[in-house]
Amino acid sequence: MFAGDPSGSNTYSDSIQGLKFSVNFAWTLLSAFLVFNMQAGFTFLGAGFVQKKNTLNYLAMSFVDFCIGALIFWLFGFALMFGGSKLAPGLLCGNSFIGYSGFLLLGDSYDVHTSVLWMFQIMFAATACTIVTGAVAERFKFHAHVIYSIFLCGVLYPVFGHWMWGKGWLQTLPFGVGARDFAGSGVVHGMGGLIAFVAAWIVGPRFGKYNPDGSPNVIHGHNLVYIVIGTLTLIFGWFGFNAGSTLAVTELRVSIIAVNTFLSAASGAVTLLYFSYFMTKKSDIIMACNGALAGCVAITASGAYVPHWAAIVIGLIASLITRLSLYFIESKLKIDDPVGAISVHGANGLWGLLSVGIFSDGTYGGVRGIIAGSCWQLLAQFIACVTLIAWCFAVGLLFFFVLKRLLGLRVPVNVERSGIDPYEHGTSCYPGS
Amino acid sequence: MFAGDPSGSNTYSDSIQGLKFSVNFAWTLLSAFLVFNMQAGFTFLGAGFVQKKNTLNYLAMSFVDFCIGALIFWLFGFALMFGGSKLAPGLLCGNSFIGYSGFLLLGDSYDVHTSVLWMFQIMFAATACTIVTGAVAERFKFHAHVIYSIFLCGVLYPVFGHWMWGKGWLQTLPFGVGARDFAGSGVVHGMGGLIAFVAAWIVGPRFGKYNPDGSPNVIHGHNLVYIVIGTLTLIFGWFGFNAGSTLAVTELRVSIIAVNTFLSAASGAVTLLYFSYFMTKKSDIIMACNGALAGCVAITASGAYVPHWAAIVIGLIASLITRLSLYFIESKLKIDDPVGAISVHGANGLWGLLSVGIFSDGTYGGVRGIIAGSCWQLLAQFIACVTLIAWCFAVGLLFFFVLKRLLGLRVPVNVERSGIDPYEHGTSCYPGS
Amino acid sequence: MFAGDPSGSNTYSDSIQGLKFSVNFAWTLLSAFLVFNMQAGFTFLGAGFVQKKNTLNYLAMSFVDFCIGALIFWLFGFALMFGGSKLAPGLLCGNSFIGYSGFLLLGDSYDVHTSVLWMFQIMFAATACTIVTGAVAERFKFHAHVIYSIFLCGVLYPVFGHWMWGKGWLQTLPFGVGARDFAGSGVVHGMGGLIAFVAAWIVGPRFGKYNPDGSPNVIHGHNLVYIVIGTLTLIFGWFGFNAGSTLAVTELRVSIIAVNTFLSAASGAVTLLYFSYFMTKKSDIIMACNGALAGCVAITASGAYVPHWAAIVIGLIASLITRLSLYFIESKLKIDDPVGAISVHGANGLWGLLSVGIFSDGTYGGVRGIIAGSCWQLLAQFIACVTLIAWCFAVGLLFFFVLKRLLGLRVPVNVERSGIDPYEHGTSCYPGS
Repeated sequence: MFAGDPSGSNTYSDSIQGLKFSVNFAWTLLSAFLVFNMQAGFTFLGAGFVQKKNTLNYLAMSFVDFCIGALIFWLFGFALMFGGSKLAPGLLCGNSFIGYSGFLLLGDSYDVHTSVLWMFQIMFAATACTIVTGAVAERFKFHAHVIYSIFLCGVLYPVFGHWMWGKGWLQTLPFGVGARDFAGSGVVHGMGGLIAFVAAWIVGPRFGKYNPDGSPNVIHGHNLVYIVIGTLTLIFGWFGFNAGSTLAVTELRVSIIAVNTFLSAASGAVTLLYFSYFMTKKSDIIMACNGALAGCVAITASGAYVPHWAAIVIGLIASLITRLSLYFIESKLKIDDPVGAISVHGANGLWGLLSVGIFSDGTYGGVRGIIAGSCWQLLAQFIACVTLIAWCFAVGLLFFFVLKRLLGLRVPVNVERSGIDPYEHGTSCYPGS
Repeated sequence: MFAGDPSGSNTYSDSIQGLKFSVNFAWTLLSAFLVFNMQAGFTFLGAGFVQKKNTLNYLAMSFVDFCIGALIFWLFGFALMFGGSKLAPGLLCGNSFIGYSGFLLLGDSYDVHTSVLWMFQIMFAATACTIVTGAVAERFKFHAHVIYSIFLCGVLYPVFGHWMWGKGWLQTLPFGVGARDFAGSGVVHGMGGLIAFVAAWIVGPRFGKYNPDGSPNVIHGHNLVYIVIGTLTLIFGWFGFNAGSTLAVTELRVSIIAVNTFLSAASGAVTLLYFSYFMTKKSDIIMACNGALAGCVAITASGAYVPHWAAIVIGLIASLITRLSLYFIESKLKIDDPVGAISVHGANGLWGLLSVGIFSDGTYGGVRGIIAGSCWQLLAQFIACVTLIAWCFAVGLLFFFVLKRLLGLRVPVNVERSGIDPYEHGTSCYPGS
Repeated sequence: MFAGDPSGSNTYSDSIQGLKFSVNFAWTLLSAFLVFNMQAGFTFLGAGFVQKKNTLNYLAMSFVDFCIGALIFWLFGFALMFGGSKLAPGLLCGNSFIGYSGFLLLGDSYDVHTSVLWMFQIMFAATACTIVTGAVAERFKFHAHVIYSIFLCGVLYPVFGHWMWGKGWLQTLPFGVGARDFAGSGVVHGMGGLIAFVAAWIVGPRFGKYNPDGSPNVIHGHNLVYIVIGTLTLIFGWFGFNAGSTLAVTELRVSIIAVNTFLSAASGAVTLLYFSYFMTKKSDIIMACNGALAGCVAITASGAYVPHWAAIVIGLIASLITRLSLYFIESKLKIDDPVGAISVHGANGLWGLLSVGIFSDGTYGGVRGIIAGSCWQLLAQFIACVTLIAWCFAVGLLFFFVLKRLLGLRVPVNVERSGIDPYEHGTSCYPGS
């Protein structure tokens, strides 16, 4: 590997090594494109879950957050996260807590290797960022959301990401092989879901969500086609998310990872469909979608390390956790999460982290969980969970508290009742009707 | 190739052979992801073709069938289909009629090669399964559809698939090179379309489809944007379906296959557009979509073996077959197929099989059709057609007959009239409106 | 490279060279599939921008144009464009102005290399063709559009494309390295946008677009979800469009290209969002989408040659050009472009061409712009711009003028007022409602 080779002509040669670079570039870039397409999935999903009068606001938040995020991640987020990881040229400087090289992809980091890593990683940051959008939909101020996006992509996400993926202290814990979060159950989905919890809590429930006696009302979305299509589009992208996270198709384990992702999603969907059916005698397709996504979230950390049967068990448990969490968040904690992001991404982000310590069979990456006879890995995973919760709550609460004081988080109540779209965005989402 | 290498580290090495595995893994997995995305295509297509009041029911059936199917295919479908094929480790046991190894992807079949094959193949089983959904839409019971999905993915599809793709008796017929169905005109689309025929026939037409004098009424779908987008999404996935079916991009023929797929789709679309235009003086875009899909179905068997001009002829004939079949099924046989699955997938599945015996030019796989001077291949293809029809009708009729007796296939007529969505799924698809 | 190898078995061998072909085939084909999926993006985008009563007409035009285009490009468009380029077998004959070999992909051009090139290139021709659809929507005759598609894919596009990409006179200009348009800012988007200008001008504005005093009215689209999803789908495809245009992932520069595409899109979106906000105090998400697409268009020519910071500057300028052009086209020139194709694709196609001459840093392909100390490249780019404008206006005007005389371009005014869909296509787009 050569430092600072922006043309790739010093890196590539007609040789085994050159072709290895090429095939791994193709794999990682195409996977990154698939992960980008998850933005379309989130857009469909969220648009389906919200009311017609606030759809454009959701679209705007979910579109703009990744645009802002990309610029911030280029400016400094990437440098904080991967500085010192030595994963590519120009990423030499950093310590166990923070990185500090690779800013603006200048100097040695103007390199074909560094750009391929950046391309893959920005899509993950964008995913974490967008997860929160659904939980605060239908009452959050657009500009508050923009500022949140800058903070998440610039500070919250990269710092924790550095600990786990940038040769930080979690990755190098002296238990098992150190904490492992293969494709980001915790780093991406756990963080997104936990910050969603904090944000939805501080901004408060939508007008009319709770009755005076505290019982919740159902506020229906407006288009369930979008929800199903969004789920399918997310699974499509998730194959890139998980199998692409090897960053190399010369790691043939990718096939096991892809199959695990699919089986966990299928298992989660079927479990939650029938669990709901036995409760309500209705075949709730939205619950099936939630179950599929829950399975995807949970297998994201462990998909590389576990056998296929375990993927099915992990998805099954994930879907039950989701159902329990949906009930607990809505009815007990009285936090209003229109799309279920806290339960799908947050709760299963943590479950995914723990599942590494339970089901890893030792066939890949040296990761051995309880079924392979070791409890140490579970300890490392548990520490990662606690750290993630502490980080998200401490810094997240502080951030949203300050933002609430400085700018305010909510649109005025009359705007919320009549619809945010004309107020913030100048038109409705369906102007003709 | 090593038996049972779940990490891939024994299989891969920094060598020509290792890289060959890598590039073919990348190709096959990315193609599988594209084929998965066809589920979104079918969801759009079917949702557009059905009435608003039954849309959620269609979504539920088309989503859940592949989830259930994945679990069944993992449990035993894959083992029945590929056991004995020796295409990957752990698939040693089987005979010409049935396979019996690879259950649960355990033992030697916990291997990177076997998982890549499973990942590609489950997407094909899921496609076959989903094709039927549209034909029985708007009156089929959800739970009957779930049981059907288990039966198709677990028995119907794998057994015939074994005969054609798992070193079974059709593949080894002593005529030509044996029956060939490159990417599954017959195995996937023919079976889906023929089972759709059986299911739609037994369940009977929708209430109001036929007048007392037997003449059919048009029951409009509710969103033609979805139909066009669904068609485009299906074509997008079909490139993976067909070109990916080499399972190897080291077979450079993939480029010919991709071009043939596109040309056949284009030819089918243009032909059916203008054929309709000369009949009705309207430019019927839905017919153009049907023509494109018909072209895709027909070229699926033969795309690898024929020259480009033949792809255009095959698509042209496919679209005319579709138009004729649509008329015949609806007006003569009085079978109600809301999305045209029988005509697009069934009729052209058979035409695709036959086209191999006519247009194969001998440049690939040794397959020589009539234009290359041999009639034997056509005989093998004809036997495959007859076998497929006999298998689907015999076993399909028996299955749906038993299911009708045990559980019933149709929702109550008052539910059908008012809409299945609230009854089966507890809500409408567009709750806000 | 062997001439006329339709099986690929003479071309491929288990060697470095064979694998290089394979990995580059995989890259180029998968990129072509992504570019094909941009058709879904344009379909969503345009469907969202038009009124409900004309949606089906838009769908029909945007679907059929690429089907017709594929057949024409196979018959002779490809031969005119790449004959003489020697980029693949069977493309020997041609001069600086026109190619004349590769017709029908017969003879030596029945080859795996030629088909991979054809597959990639038809998607670009289809994109250019579809761009025009939006600008003439809601009043253009369907059959006039079909004839236009034949002309564009058969003559207009291939001839200019030959000059730039088929070893034609622009590519070999004696200034800098000759004119360069890496992935087609000019060839594809500039041509699409300029022809859109000519077509929208000649066909005239929609009924009701302009008041008697010449001031424009806003004619709202009908579904802004489609617009945002369309934009995301287009960006997804654009990664293939730009990074795939190396035709080889052994050019590791692909990663820089992908990152540049994303940064330019993000920069364009954020710039136009806030520019609009400071003008109107509304966060106009449609403007953000326009900005993202403008950034994509502009970086299409230069993405391979410029550093990351320049991609951000190029996107920023592109979005401002778009805003200015939208105003100028609508209010000064009084040309009615329902989707903004002229401003997004046309204006930025030219800006993209010029940006190569300014920001190329000399790290790739020997292209050195002003920031690398050379003004000659900018001269070559300027000549390409002038040529493109002259070609599109001269031939485009002549073509649409003749077509107007022979067939007429517009539907009758009463049809335009009541909706084109039932008149041309026999049904409305949303039959149920």
